[in-house]
Amino acid sequence: MALSLGFIVERLGGALHGDAALQVRAIAPLERARADEISFLAHPKYAAQLAHTHAGCVIVGPEQAVAARARGACIVTERPYVYFARLTQLWKAEHRGPALRGIHPTAIVDPDAEIGDDVSIGPFCVVERGARIGAGTVLRAHVTVGEDCVLGRRCLLHAGVVIGADGFGFALDEDRHWIKIEQLGAVQIGDDVEIGANSCVDRGALSDTVIEDGVKLDNLVQIGHNVHIGAHSALAGCAGVAGSAKIGAHCTIGGGAVVLGHLTLADGVHISAASVVMRSILKPGQYSGIFPIDENASWERNAATLKQLHGLRERIKALERGLTAS
Amino acid sequence: MALSLGFIVERLGGALHGDAALQVRAIAPLERARADEISFLAHPKYAAQLAHTHAGCVIVGPEQAVAARARGACIVTERPYVYFARLTQLWKAEHRGPALRGIHPTAIVDPDAEIGDDVSIGPFCVVERGARIGAGTVLRAHVTVGEDCVLGRRCLLHAGVVIGADGFGFALDEDRHWIKIEQLGAVQIGDDVEIGANSCVDRGALSDTVIEDGVKLDNLVQIGHNVHIGAHSALAGCAGVAGSAKIGAHCTIGGGAVVLGHLTLADGVHISAASVVMRSILKPGQYSGIFPIDENASWERNAATLKQLHGLRERIKALERGLTAS
Amino acid sequence: MALSLGFIVERLGGALHGDAALQVRAIAPLERARADEISFLAHPKYAAQLAHTHAGCVIVGPEQAVAARARGACIVTERPYVYFARLTQLWKAEHRGPALRGIHPTAIVDPDAEIGDDVSIGPFCVVERGARIGAGTVLRAHVTVGEDCVLGRRCLLHAGVVIGADGFGFALDEDRHWIKIEQLGAVQIGDDVEIGANSCVDRGALSDTVIEDGVKLDNLVQIGHNVHIGAHSALAGCAGVAGSAKIGAHCTIGGGAVVLGHLTLADGVHISAASVVMRSILKPGQYSGIFPIDENASWERNAATLKQLHGLRERIKALERGLTAS
Repeated sequence: MALSLGFIVERLGGALHGDAALQVRAIAPLERARADEISFLAHPKYAAQLAHTHAGCVIVGPEQAVAARARGACIVTERPYVYFARLTQLWKAEHRGPALRGIHPTAIVDPDAEIGDDVSIGPFCVVERGARIGAGTVLRAHVTVGEDCVLGRRCLLHAGVVIGADGFGFALDEDRHWIKIEQLGAVQIGDDVEIGANSCVDRGALSDTVIEDGVKLDNLVQIGHNVHIGAHSALAGCAGVAGSAKIGAHCTIGGGAVVLGHLTLADGVHISAASVVMRSILKPGQYSGIFPIDENASWERNAATLKQLHGLRERIKALERGLTAS
Repeated sequence: MALSLGFIVERLGGALHGDAALQVRAIAPLERARADEISFLAHPKYAAQLAHTHAGCVIVGPEQAVAARARGACIVTERPYVYFARLTQLWKAEHRGPALRGIHPTAIVDPDAEIGDDVSIGPFCVVERGARIGAGTVLRAHVTVGEDCVLGRRCLLHAGVVIGADGFGFALDEDRHWIKIEQLGAVQIGDDVEIGANSCVDRGALSDTVIEDGVKLDNLVQIGHNVHIGAHSALAGCAGVAGSAKIGAHCTIGGGAVVLGHLTLADGVHISAASVVMRSILKPGQYSGIFPIDENASWERNAATLKQLHGLRERIKALERGLTAS
Repeated sequence: MALSLGFIVERLGGALHGDAALQVRAIAPLERARADEISFLAHPKYAAQLAHTHAGCVIVGPEQAVAARARGACIVTERPYVYFARLTQLWKAEHRGPALRGIHPTAIVDPDAEIGDDVSIGPFCVVERGARIGAGTVLRAHVTVGEDCVLGRRCLLHAGVVIGADGFGFALDEDRHWIKIEQLGAVQIGDDVEIGANSCVDRGALSDTVIEDGVKLDNLVQIGHNVHIGAHSALAGCAGVAGSAKIGAHCTIGGGAVVLGHLTLADGVHISAASVVMRSILKPGQYSGIFPIDENASWERNAATLKQLHGLRERIKALERGLTAS
């Protein structure tokens, strides 16, 4: 269960400096790697760790090549972290063997669903009528794809994902009872989308919920009806996006963050974990809104004062007027 | 796949002004509706859009009837948004055909469970002994209803819902190990309750967790043991309610909001998204507690200052004393 | 369906004062307990309730023994709340009968998985190749245990739990597309761990995600890749822990709280509900960071002012300088 450095560069490219016959038995971070393991320098800021690592080989960028060669074998490549990612893919393919393909005998796939080539549908999946699943897409166990929902090619849906549950739509009647608005839209998911375990993407009310190519959703993420997520955006675990929000391309939404409904986020907007987006954000950049954690007693004092903050501002104004007057 | 205006008013009521034979092929929002689509004016504040819509017919309230008739066909009704909701229901019934009823052959229903008339139990559902499911209730795929849990009539549980997992109860022993408190209660759910995908309602510790008639829970909602939710309240996605909290009737809890344990919320309390309820709220109204999102650099400065807020208040007091003294 | 006090103390110990033949039909809290029910005084601060309870028997600590005996039957024990927990266990065993053991015929257990003695695997579970499940562990319905993941002894995994989905790891390539980092690690879970419904524990990227003995996770909890949770810690519902965070032993994390990635929490750190841990916490204690909820209008004013807080601090400084100068 080892790969030679020669095999690695033959498959993934990069310039090898060192013994092509050297076998590595695992991939490991610099600080823990041993002589029979390969490591990587993900970012130049960790360059100081190069001198101390025991790794048998290190994947580095051109600017670290001299230092890396001074200490032992290395593979030089423009983007070491991407190279590392591709190495994990090679590693998995070589060590775990090819993933099983095909439709598990326990899966329930409606005869009116369209299933592309080389699709894998895991145990206890349910694919309803009118659903379409693109070539190479993988559904792990217990995934549900509702009526008329569409998945692109090479998607990966982890266990427990629910695509196409009803959006949350009700009208209040004269007795203040909720009257269900049937959700007549579906879900459209592009190519190369990954969706984490137990996450949900609701069907649209009148038109469809849309997730564009290359989007990555972590576990326990909630996507409301008629949300639109632009290509190559990523949402971390427990994030929630309310109905009809429009998130641009190349955005990142941190874990536990909430995006309220009907908002627009421009391309390249980055929301910190646990922040709440209450207004549209039309300028790329990093945005945050998190109450700073503190020892409980300090927090209590500050939180109590926060409930008087507007009043404090008025008192500061008054002081400023007083000082001017005095 | 179209409905005539005449058929719609025959089924749903309302006063039609225009050609009863006109066929509409979809329901669409005002700004996107085309000549062969029907739209609605959900709120008078959107009345200005009436002049510009291309919809073949618009559902409006009496106060917009004149303006609506001036532009073309319309259906006049007291509550246009409720009419729209009922129209989506009619649309679904006419276009998708009757939903399948009955117990899917893969579902596991304990012989000691009681199943009402016209119940639908989807693929891979598990209904344990002593559970009771009221007439007309629908369980989608992968739903679990635990021992002795009771669902009322006409409920809808989306895929992955778990009713009656154990509440989170433990006692710390002398070694600071957690000793499980077996959860001896169950869950009681009223009529017309809808529960979104992958949401959980835990069984009570000694008595039952209760969800009253007409409550709507969105996806990924967590309801702790012995919570009581009053009739016709609605909780949006990712909301969490901790053990023994009592939420009144006609409340709304925004997405991602958290209600701590053992609190009481009066009827008609509305909690904004992502807010945390730390004390009982006995007066109806809208309540919020959200850190305002900002550009990251601004947030960092303000958050750092927030940790000194109580001290700032003391300094303002001192300034006020100083100004008075000077 | 009742137990005698004599039977209870025979099985659980404690000093009974009162009639050993007295039958109790349920366990109930002090304020609701009736004459044929047994109750408990979980904490001395509730001692005043003793005088008013109608319970047939009360479980109390030594310091309440005199007061408890004055009102009727009691069981005196060092830790009444732990005694209560054990009584719930006895109650369940006596009333519900032994839980079914064994592998449900619908469960899919890979022939290369190792299953310990007396394991229970519920309907529609999936246990993949290389997984190991320790003796006495219980998986409820719809649980997924991924390749090579290890569960200790006497664990309890509620419905919909997903162990070993891929961690959320991607590298950005030159086109700003996400390249998947295959997650080559697995998950190691110790003994006596309980995991709530629909919770997820991701597999590690290179090494394993680790959950030590006695940890309790509530429902809808997300544990990222390479997280390490120390023994006997407890995380309440909807909590999320991002990748590579290290949480000590005997910690508690409140519902909806978020721990960011790569942080360290010392043993005995307690995080309040809905708080966000953004920096390592190396000192035991209670920590909070919650925006105080308020009537919406007040919140709006205070939140708006909060966005100017750093500026207000500068104005206070200026005032202080002015006052000194004046």
